[in-house]
Amino acid sequence: MKTPDNLSNLVKQFCQILPKDSVLAKKEQLSVYECDALTAYRQIPRIALLPETQEQIKAIIKICKKLQLPVVVRGAGTSLSGGALPHAKGVLLNTAKLNRILEIDPENRTATVEPGVTNVAISEAVKPLGLYYAPDPSSQIACTIGGNIAENSGGIHCLKYGLTVHNILALKILTIDGEIIDLGGKHFDSPGFDLLALMNGSEGMLGVVLQATVRLLPEPDGRKVLLAAFDRIQDAGNAVAAIISSGIIPAGLEMMDSFTVMATEKYCSLGYPKDAAAILICELDGFEEDIQSQVLQTQKILDSHHATEIRLAKNKDEEEKFWKGRKSAFPALGNLSPDYYCMDGTIPRKHLANVLEEINFLSKKYGMSVANVFHAGDGNLHPLILYDANRAGELETAEQLGSEILQLCVKMGGSITGEHGVGVEKLDQMCVQFNSAELQTFHSIKSAFDEYQLLNPGKAIPTLHRCAEFGAMHVHGGEMPHADLPRF
Amino acid sequence: MKTPDNLSNLVKQFCQILPKDSVLAKKEQLSVYECDALTAYRQIPRIALLPETQEQIKAIIKICKKLQLPVVVRGAGTSLSGGALPHAKGVLLNTAKLNRILEIDPENRTATVEPGVTNVAISEAVKPLGLYYAPDPSSQIACTIGGNIAENSGGIHCLKYGLTVHNILALKILTIDGEIIDLGGKHFDSPGFDLLALMNGSEGMLGVVLQATVRLLPEPDGRKVLLAAFDRIQDAGNAVAAIISSGIIPAGLEMMDSFTVMATEKYCSLGYPKDAAAILICELDGFEEDIQSQVLQTQKILDSHHATEIRLAKNKDEEEKFWKGRKSAFPALGNLSPDYYCMDGTIPRKHLANVLEEINFLSKKYGMSVANVFHAGDGNLHPLILYDANRAGELETAEQLGSEILQLCVKMGGSITGEHGVGVEKLDQMCVQFNSAELQTFHSIKSAFDEYQLLNPGKAIPTLHRCAEFGAMHVHGGEMPHADLPRF
Repeated sequence: MKTPDNLSNLVKQFCQILPKDSVLAKKEQLSVYECDALTAYRQIPRIALLPETQEQIKAIIKICKKLQLPVVVRGAGTSLSGGALPHAKGVLLNTAKLNRILEIDPENRTATVEPGVTNVAISEAVKPLGLYYAPDPSSQIACTIGGNIAENSGGIHCLKYGLTVHNILALKILTIDGEIIDLGGKHFDSPGFDLLALMNGSEGMLGVVLQATVRLLPEPDGRKVLLAAFDRIQDAGNAVAAIISSGIIPAGLEMMDSFTVMATEKYCSLGYPKDAAAILICELDGFEEDIQSQVLQTQKILDSHHATEIRLAKNKDEEEKFWKGRKSAFPALGNLSPDYYCMDGTIPRKHLANVLEEINFLSKKYGMSVANVFHAGDGNLHPLILYDANRAGELETAEQLGSEILQLCVKMGGSITGEHGVGVEKLDQMCVQFNSAELQTFHSIKSAFDEYQLLNPGKAIPTLHRCAEFGAMHVHGGEMPHADLPRF
Repeated sequence: MKTPDNLSNLVKQFCQILPKDSVLAKKEQLSVYECDALTAYRQIPRIALLPETQEQIKAIIKICKKLQLPVVVRGAGTSLSGGALPHAKGVLLNTAKLNRILEIDPENRTATVEPGVTNVAISEAVKPLGLYYAPDPSSQIACTIGGNIAENSGGIHCLKYGLTVHNILALKILTIDGEIIDLGGKHFDSPGFDLLALMNGSEGMLGVVLQATVRLLPEPDGRKVLLAAFDRIQDAGNAVAAIISSGIIPAGLEMMDSFTVMATEKYCSLGYPKDAAAILICELDGFEEDIQSQVLQTQKILDSHHATEIRLAKNKDEEEKFWKGRKSAFPALGNLSPDYYCMDGTIPRKHLANVLEEINFLSKKYGMSVANVFHAGDGNLHPLILYDANRAGELETAEQLGSEILQLCVKMGGSITGEHGVGVEKLDQMCVQFNSAELQTFHSIKSAFDEYQLLNPGKAIPTLHRCAEFGAMHVHGGEMPHADLPRF
């Protein structure tokens, strides 16, 4: 069905659907879309479109299908893995103007929203009802629910309240064939294959999210925040495992290493214990009367794991101060180094201490600083590799070091991404994580939804050819044939 | 690749893989497999196989693929929707002998098991460690984890602890092409499409479960059980909504109507309030100190919703007594009526009272008793239609009534199954739940995994042709063109 087209013809076609100023085709207009938060990769799209309604999206997709144009859907462009990197020959479909909250249903505790609504806007809209939307990625002020669904985003509170997939009740999806499919609902479980879960984390490759119904939670009655310092990372890691094993599920349980503590203190001096090898921040929430016993138990566990200092925030101000360092860690590290590369591996919790030690070893091997600040409770690491892109070869070295860290995660029974997605960034590491039968299954699923590979092509799932070139470094089951890997 | 085969040739081939007594081909041997717990449907398989190892399953699947033989995998045969109904021309693959617990990992709180391990056997094995496996279908003594995965089983405690899908961390799957795919792991989230979630509830149509890694939870420190009686079903329904809205998540929150209470009292006289229009049983668990405030709050809510009586179990014996009636409800009702037909619809919680009223109306319209006993907290109804299969036409009437009840659930924004699956039972209702684009997507997924439709063919997803014949009764979005539906 491909018809000859040139840019002005394309513009003309899309201008029949959208107002002129929502069809962007000039280079200076397009350059704002050339990358997302993974700035190392850049690509100008052929054309960018800013629809305002679901009907306009349908009309756009119809044309893209007819002309076989690749489509990259973009929310706020905060992806850390290049999920929203444009396609040179394709359409960049920006959902920012679809930012309406369509329904708030307090009885069923749900909100139905358009894909361009920001994460934080949902919580703000339902705050007067005493409700909130739980997943809270660091970029929550900017990032959109459509992007959250594409990447199955997490955040500090997903230890207790789950990732995006656990908080999405229903989706209205537009397929590349122009069909609408409604998945899930305001009810428990659904018959048929679990396409609702499948859509979450599918990185825009299976369909376009037209609207989403999210689960809302009641604001907890009360909250307590603890901060503990340790002389040894090993102790902090073991304390994390012990807290979780005791049956306590903190709302958040975060770790920062000495490098990060030092950077944070330099950036916003909050009075964190500067000599600590690691600090933990632990938030407990629930009914006011219930939390006290959990605080006592957590303090006991921290103490028995040789915490050198345990602080309990006395009031809301102090709570915010405890959290501020954690939340400022990225800019604080950015302040220390011209560039950083943020990794996102996961590991079984019990290996925390060993893996941190090994990252330290790799950091020395490559001669590059690595700061560790992460969601300890769920074993989701965020090692930040500090480098200077202006020095020849440093980006490449950082990428090599990052690749080794992710392979280490896989080798320890973990995975190459916890919440940032694969995008264009981790295509090679997918060859490490999965064998060819597994990758082939992903491709079959993709083709079942999108035969001509028009939706976000080239992302998330590497071709088998690419993996063959990468060197068949599959380590499933603990064996890795060719890789230059650390000594476990 | 299809080669001519007859039964004795088939037996010969399978006897090269399995011991003779694990290859069943005589009618008297096969009749035990002719149905599962949905006894209204019966079919003798061509041959039944009882492998003991994963290797044997691989060899069996290889032959089935080569000969294009349909394969129905069966755990304990407790499916209530005919999910394990054999195929006349196919292999019945019984996983009962794959009942080994392969690993218990207390630090990561996981157990890795073979598919034929019973649900309760997992909890029993880890009890000495103070751990348990949370999903608890009524059939948990018999049903296997493989079957639980196929049906995404729930149970009383899934309100707080989730369905099977929320408690499975990893799966080793054998595809019909003989490939092994490893999904998930002992870590948070995974890259690639969420095939782990997709497998849960896929009713044996996408692959064969070779082993599963499940999440274990620490036994709660303490537990309290409340029983409340109501004069009006409406009040009980509203109390359920109010408890959940308050932020309390009970471990279980169950409702029984007067008919069920009466049947239970007749069956095992536990001293339930006989005059109640409905009773609620509410279990709260957590840290000993924490529960007390939740008990007080729950009592207050029950009281403000006009509970005529509220009992708090004083000890473990009394707790068990409160639960015994709920757990005996099915046999108690079976004692009242020669046959019953157990439905499994879900609805948004806020419609509980209205839907129960409407079921009452339908019960009168069809002249058939319906008892309601169900997971109120998550809006998962189990109306039991009482009938006598020996009276001409009663089964058909029960099925019609059941069909109307499920359509009512869909119309109210719910679904046709909460935890029992679609199987062969609810194929027609799938035409009500989904439109043709949605069904076509399911078929595409099926074909991506199983091109020749060999795995459990004819289950779960109706053909578009069947739906056209059923009358295009799709009600998505609240419109139902042709159906004779109740008056909302």
